[in-house]
Amino acid sequence: MSAPAPVVFRNALLVTQDAERRVVRGDLAVTDGRIAHVGPGAAAVGEEIDASDFAIVPGFVNAHAHVAMSLLRGIADDRDLGGFLERLFAVDARRTERDVESGAAAGIAEMLLSGTTSFLDLYYAEDAVARAVERLGARGFLGWAVLDPEMTTQKGVPVDNARAFIDRWRGHARVTPLVGPQGVYVCGEETWLKARDVARAAGTLLHYHLSETRREVHEHEAKTGMRPPIWLERIGFLGADQVAAHGVWLTRREIELLAERRVAVAHCPSSNLKLATGGVAPVVELRRAGARVALGTDSTASNNSLSMLREMHVAGLLQKHHRWDAAALRAQELLDLATIEGASAIGRGQDLGSLEVGKLADLSLVRLDHPTMLPARPEAVVSHLAYAASEEAIDSVYVGGEAVVRHRALVREPWAPIRAEAETAAAALWSPA
Amino acid sequence: MSAPAPVVFRNALLVTQDAERRVVRGDLAVTDGRIAHVGPGAAAVGEEIDASDFAIVPGFVNAHAHVAMSLLRGIADDRDLGGFLERLFAVDARRTERDVESGAAAGIAEMLLSGTTSFLDLYYAEDAVARAVERLGARGFLGWAVLDPEMTTQKGVPVDNARAFIDRWRGHARVTPLVGPQGVYVCGEETWLKARDVARAAGTLLHYHLSETRREVHEHEAKTGMRPPIWLERIGFLGADQVAAHGVWLTRREIELLAERRVAVAHCPSSNLKLATGGVAPVVELRRAGARVALGTDSTASNNSLSMLREMHVAGLLQKHHRWDAAALRAQELLDLATIEGASAIGRGQDLGSLEVGKLADLSLVRLDHPTMLPARPEAVVSHLAYAASEEAIDSVYVGGEAVVRHRALVREPWAPIRAEAETAAAALWSPA
Repeated sequence: MSAPAPVVFRNALLVTQDAERRVVRGDLAVTDGRIAHVGPGAAAVGEEIDASDFAIVPGFVNAHAHVAMSLLRGIADDRDLGGFLERLFAVDARRTERDVESGAAAGIAEMLLSGTTSFLDLYYAEDAVARAVERLGARGFLGWAVLDPEMTTQKGVPVDNARAFIDRWRGHARVTPLVGPQGVYVCGEETWLKARDVARAAGTLLHYHLSETRREVHEHEAKTGMRPPIWLERIGFLGADQVAAHGVWLTRREIELLAERRVAVAHCPSSNLKLATGGVAPVVELRRAGARVALGTDSTASNNSLSMLREMHVAGLLQKHHRWDAAALRAQELLDLATIEGASAIGRGQDLGSLEVGKLADLSLVRLDHPTMLPARPEAVVSHLAYAASEEAIDSVYVGGEAVVRHRALVREPWAPIRAEAETAAAALWSPA
Repeated sequence: MSAPAPVVFRNALLVTQDAERRVVRGDLAVTDGRIAHVGPGAAAVGEEIDASDFAIVPGFVNAHAHVAMSLLRGIADDRDLGGFLERLFAVDARRTERDVESGAAAGIAEMLLSGTTSFLDLYYAEDAVARAVERLGARGFLGWAVLDPEMTTQKGVPVDNARAFIDRWRGHARVTPLVGPQGVYVCGEETWLKARDVARAAGTLLHYHLSETRREVHEHEAKTGMRPPIWLERIGFLGADQVAAHGVWLTRREIELLAERRVAVAHCPSSNLKLATGGVAPVVELRRAGARVALGTDSTASNNSLSMLREMHVAGLLQKHHRWDAAALRAQELLDLATIEGASAIGRGQDLGSLEVGKLADLSLVRLDHPTMLPARPEAVVSHLAYAASEEAIDSVYVGGEAVVRHRALVREPWAPIRAEAETAAAALWSPA
């Protein structure tokens, strides 16, 4: 599609997330889908929007999701990961590619409406997710799930499917295809290394689960004599352009290893807590060691929300509680995880995650007059975003300068038919087999 | 005021929270502010509302708040209780009764708009909070803060002020005045017993802080040789019609004591986590011992949200995590804490907390077509309320059969002037002294 029309947002409270983390009153101009001016006195370039009642905030980056699972929200609550997966796999076997697209569209709608513009996904049938991304105008970083051939219901060899998926979508403006090795419990050495080679050849990311549960760690140690990150290093897998989800059960040595190899970690506190994974991801230690950390919701089946506003709140509460230190993961750091550090984790720190000239205009207009943003003082706005703001405060959302949510309504497609199709698909999946 | 007009909500998904926790399609009729029919086939009584796109849910009971503090949201983040209070007390000294009313109105608006119809408050100048309750139509259970005379900035003797406050508001339809001894760190034996006598004479509740921090417990033990609940028992204070907030640092013996004396506990997980209180309130053990447990947000200065939807989610996540048991505090139990058990904790289980004939019509219409309520299946709706629903899904809210929120807008007063006044008051408080 052609570039969106140029626009200037006038007199907003700009939560820049730039290097100085400035929060300033000013204008934000967008031309050719990118930010052309940040601060007072932007020249007119086309459309003028009075944004004086809004904070403008970089679009959130959700660094770990399985967005199509919105159809399964509430289907497997109050179980640990084992019982959870057992229930899900039973339903999963009956899911069609059309179900995946329906669920993804509903999930992407929920994300856009809560200010998330980019998300990192891990699933099979990612073409269906990619179509939903196109339909709604989000930015999808979509990892095709890769497992050992004997461990999957996919037709053909998963890693070859991933390569073909990447070939189909490479160069797309909103879809970044990538490779998603599921985890050490279903991927052997050959699969990991092939996945790495496919990603490297395509110049794209790897996204995988790592050290989420004690069981995963202990079983891998029993099988190989090594804990998962050590084993992944030993086989030569670890490297930059990788986002490992969870990273709950990491030793000090593993933390240093991930930092050294430039592997980013997507922290998913709500999901970890809800599945009673035990332990707490060493977010403070990872950051201190220099590792990039991002924030992810995981799926609606284990969270059960896709809101990064809630996820920031939970992430902050968990670290403060765990460390008996109220200053652990401060409000500013939480917003960093959800924006600039999330962008950096997915390798797009040059393009996304802050309001700076030259970056893509992925941003939200947040109502300063919403009850949960009171008092709307510049010195409190970061706190409100991290700890208090309700999704309803997100008035409008732009991706690449294009309005994809305007006054709480999706722009490209209305919600009602997306919802109707998702409910129909859910009805079939929820019914007894 | 006269009783609101009778109404029938037709064909809703009724989340009854009755003894069987039934979720059924049907009608809900309201006459004279009370529920007259629950289930299929209600006779017409007056207004007819098609509620087929809604779940009807009992209004939430927020069992611990300091609602006027909405002006101070974000003013003292990322500090422990000591540092937090130091910052707050400095601001507090400058607050006027008008500031209290402004803050309370804004906070009550936030609560109503997130489905909370009843709240238990602890503060001074509760007349101002009561006026805000009247203005917006919530149900306020308002505890006048009582301290030893030498510990307070109140004019006169706090316990006498509490008695006078009760006399001024007794018998009010929406305001229940009560006595709020602040805690063992500012109340000596005489104050506790006088507070008890005032409450007993007026037939009302006592609401107080109890065993929130280690410091509180240890200092009291150093001073008296007894931990707070044991000491309160020894002086003859403990009894029914009491709601103790927090109850984090409780021993097994204290849990049994509170259950035996019929003291209810208001669990405030977000606040406890954010202040890094350490430990976790023994919610499971309290319930197992037969104690009534409710859920509270505490203030926006330490939460920083007043949403009971978020609070249920956090409460569930915390217990599952703490016990390494994904089945701890299931979705249904979380909704119970926020509704019927909250009502029971504040001594109004006969009147509030469920959709049953004869109870007050305090309820919310929750949009089944909201993205966070997908899939809107009867067997999932309790899960969605506990773990996923965003505040925006709360479409309309009734108190005593009167619409106080209709389609996301306050009914009795518009939000804009409430907000403007609160921002003005906040500006004065936030400015350097």
